[in-house]
Amino acid sequence: MLSTTARIDAFAKCRPPDVLHDVIYPYYQPIQERLSDVEVVIDGRRVLMAGSNDYLGLSNDPRLKAAAGEALRRFGAGNSGSRVLNGTLESHQRLEGELADFLGHEAAMVVSTGYQANLALSSLFGSGDLLLADRHIHASLIEATRLGQARLQRYRHNDTAQLAELLRAADPATGLMIVTEGMFSVAGDLCDLPGIADLATRFGARVIVDGAHDVGLLGAGGRGAAEHLGRLSAVDVQTVTFSKCFGTTGGAVTGPAHVIDHLRHHARSAMFSASLPPACTAAALAALDVIRTEPERRRRAIAAGRRLRSGLAVFGLPMVAADTPTVALEVGDAALCCRLWKELFDQGVLANAMLPPSVPGGKALIRLSVTAAHTDVQVDRILEAVAGAVRRVSPAHHGAATA
Amino acid sequence: MLSTTARIDAFAKCRPPDVLHDVIYPYYQPIQERLSDVEVVIDGRRVLMAGSNDYLGLSNDPRLKAAAGEALRRFGAGNSGSRVLNGTLESHQRLEGELADFLGHEAAMVVSTGYQANLALSSLFGSGDLLLADRHIHASLIEATRLGQARLQRYRHNDTAQLAELLRAADPATGLMIVTEGMFSVAGDLCDLPGIADLATRFGARVIVDGAHDVGLLGAGGRGAAEHLGRLSAVDVQTVTFSKCFGTTGGAVTGPAHVIDHLRHHARSAMFSASLPPACTAAALAALDVIRTEPERRRRAIAAGRRLRSGLAVFGLPMVAADTPTVALEVGDAALCCRLWKELFDQGVLANAMLPPSVPGGKALIRLSVTAAHTDVQVDRILEAVAGAVRRVSPAHHGAATA
Repeated sequence: MLSTTARIDAFAKCRPPDVLHDVIYPYYQPIQERLSDVEVVIDGRRVLMAGSNDYLGLSNDPRLKAAAGEALRRFGAGNSGSRVLNGTLESHQRLEGELADFLGHEAAMVVSTGYQANLALSSLFGSGDLLLADRHIHASLIEATRLGQARLQRYRHNDTAQLAELLRAADPATGLMIVTEGMFSVAGDLCDLPGIADLATRFGARVIVDGAHDVGLLGAGGRGAAEHLGRLSAVDVQTVTFSKCFGTTGGAVTGPAHVIDHLRHHARSAMFSASLPPACTAAALAALDVIRTEPERRRRAIAAGRRLRSGLAVFGLPMVAADTPTVALEVGDAALCCRLWKELFDQGVLANAMLPPSVPGGKALIRLSVTAAHTDVQVDRILEAVAGAVRRVSPAHHGAATA
Repeated sequence: MLSTTARIDAFAKCRPPDVLHDVIYPYYQPIQERLSDVEVVIDGRRVLMAGSNDYLGLSNDPRLKAAAGEALRRFGAGNSGSRVLNGTLESHQRLEGELADFLGHEAAMVVSTGYQANLALSSLFGSGDLLLADRHIHASLIEATRLGQARLQRYRHNDTAQLAELLRAADPATGLMIVTEGMFSVAGDLCDLPGIADLATRFGARVIVDGAHDVGLLGAGGRGAAEHLGRLSAVDVQTVTFSKCFGTTGGAVTGPAHVIDHLRHHARSAMFSASLPPACTAAALAALDVIRTEPERRRRAIAAGRRLRSGLAVFGLPMVAADTPTVALEVGDAALCCRLWKELFDQGVLANAMLPPSVPGGKALIRLSVTAAHTDVQVDRILEAVAGAVRRVSPAHHGAATA
């Protein structure tokens, strides 16, 4: 028998990570008050939000808040159980019907978070299947591939030629699934859905698209990257989150009726978790209504993104190419990224410092997001803050950029 | 190159499961209206809830609803981002401080769901570790063991002797962790924490307890199964959900500061998911206040459970032994279970039919839960409904029981 001291402590691995507990710590900044759609109070100071996913500016919308408040009053603060056993509301089913209809699918399943919507896909990844996934898919999709039974092969980001090679080499006895994000979360760029759709048809593969960042934002009707790229019908299964364009929290999977039925009875992240609270369900329904009826919000968000991008381009800063409200500034060095983040923060702008492990080592980014609720003046204030931050942190670069 | 038709369709596996699409379908019954703390409208009829986890009757409490409504008004319907980057509220941190304090731990991390709180544990399960887990742990804990790197061994439910054997046989170079639920979700029975705590001390193992069903409900102070069993200090890491006693949704992990800090920077289910909405965070804070100050709610819930159990014992129905508000009637056959569920439902009582894969094949259960909000008259109505259901479904059994 061993004494406690002789044995390795299982918790000994838990040590603060190096880079993050430096002088500059860009994470977990607590919001004390919300002043408007895009302004908050942090550390007693007014801060302009340039790092949220509230693309349509709906999270503070009076209509969402009224719908959520009414559901809270009528149904309570939670459902006290899973969808399966005792936690299904009629509003969950209404939301499912409307979402399926909106995205042109037969059915939908609403779950507690977007993360769990993606995890639910794991029950589609059977042992006889081969899964081909873009290297930049979200953490929750990676978890889903790890929980599923299918064999996984990842292709280089948006490299449809490599995807084609992998499909060509696949054993004919396997089921094939291609997994991508519509709009990629880290850098705001889009997938090559036309290329993927062609390959899927040629090789008999199913296409699964995570629309977390694009459903509501992109496409003439707000149906996401697939609509924007003219390939709505090529998507077999789509996941959606309610914590971005929908302004609340929760998620859903849409697809063929028999697939959704399978998920309802096999997807553990959906079956073994308390259902989406009444207020969030009502807010998502209200948001879907706005998404369908107010296309000008999408246009405003995209226009704000363009204003931000063209301003940044003038400074000569390297960015990942895209035409969305999310801009990834390629900084590279994590410490420099932290310094830039801090300079922005000191000027009252909250950006996202994307450090490893969210991005590969040496590929640190400053991510800036704007929304339909940002005015031109506010976008310009972000630009001014970036210019000032770059000037102070890296004078040489700024000199080169403006020379 | 293959044509679409020559290849196996990856979605061909998605077929409706046999047992569930029978005449009786006990799942996903949509609630149309909430009439009171324990009564809802389903299919136009008044139904008494006997299958929720709202043990303290708080989900409809005016104080929770007021706190949630106020947070919704001030902060909006969602936080539009992760805790890490832009979604931390001061109220998240206040809740973390109060929870840690309440459970006697150094720190806490609040996440979007209880499911994701358990998933977060996966980042503690390192490759040099051996994980010893009770066979009855929740699906979300099983997922966490699958996502973690540690080797997993499961011991028979509450079999501390077998756990001791496994610990004795463990390689001294491994870190050891024991994972259990406090109160088990399916049958309402408690873990053998005194036995586990002794073994943990002897073998230098860490103890991780999922308190989803018991924190708030058990123990003089509501600190859960660990307090009730007199072993609060034996728990190294505790997970909590807000969708049961706390009446809303969300979850948390509590433990040593360096462990929680590690989770904040490595637990993917916490880092890569939108943060708990303002309303749910406020409701959880309000619930914690009630849990600390109104021990009579715990007593009422336990008393309701005892009244239910002793009534069922009079009928001679086999039950899993426990002294909690959750009662598992051992039915065995899944079809019989569905028939019993339907008889109860037709009498206006919503119970839980626990069929495979939630339980092993041939081990179907009817789970009944009562709460602090159930009156004696309502508990007796559940008993009456069970008596009637058993009589109609299985006359022989009823005859034997009442002979």
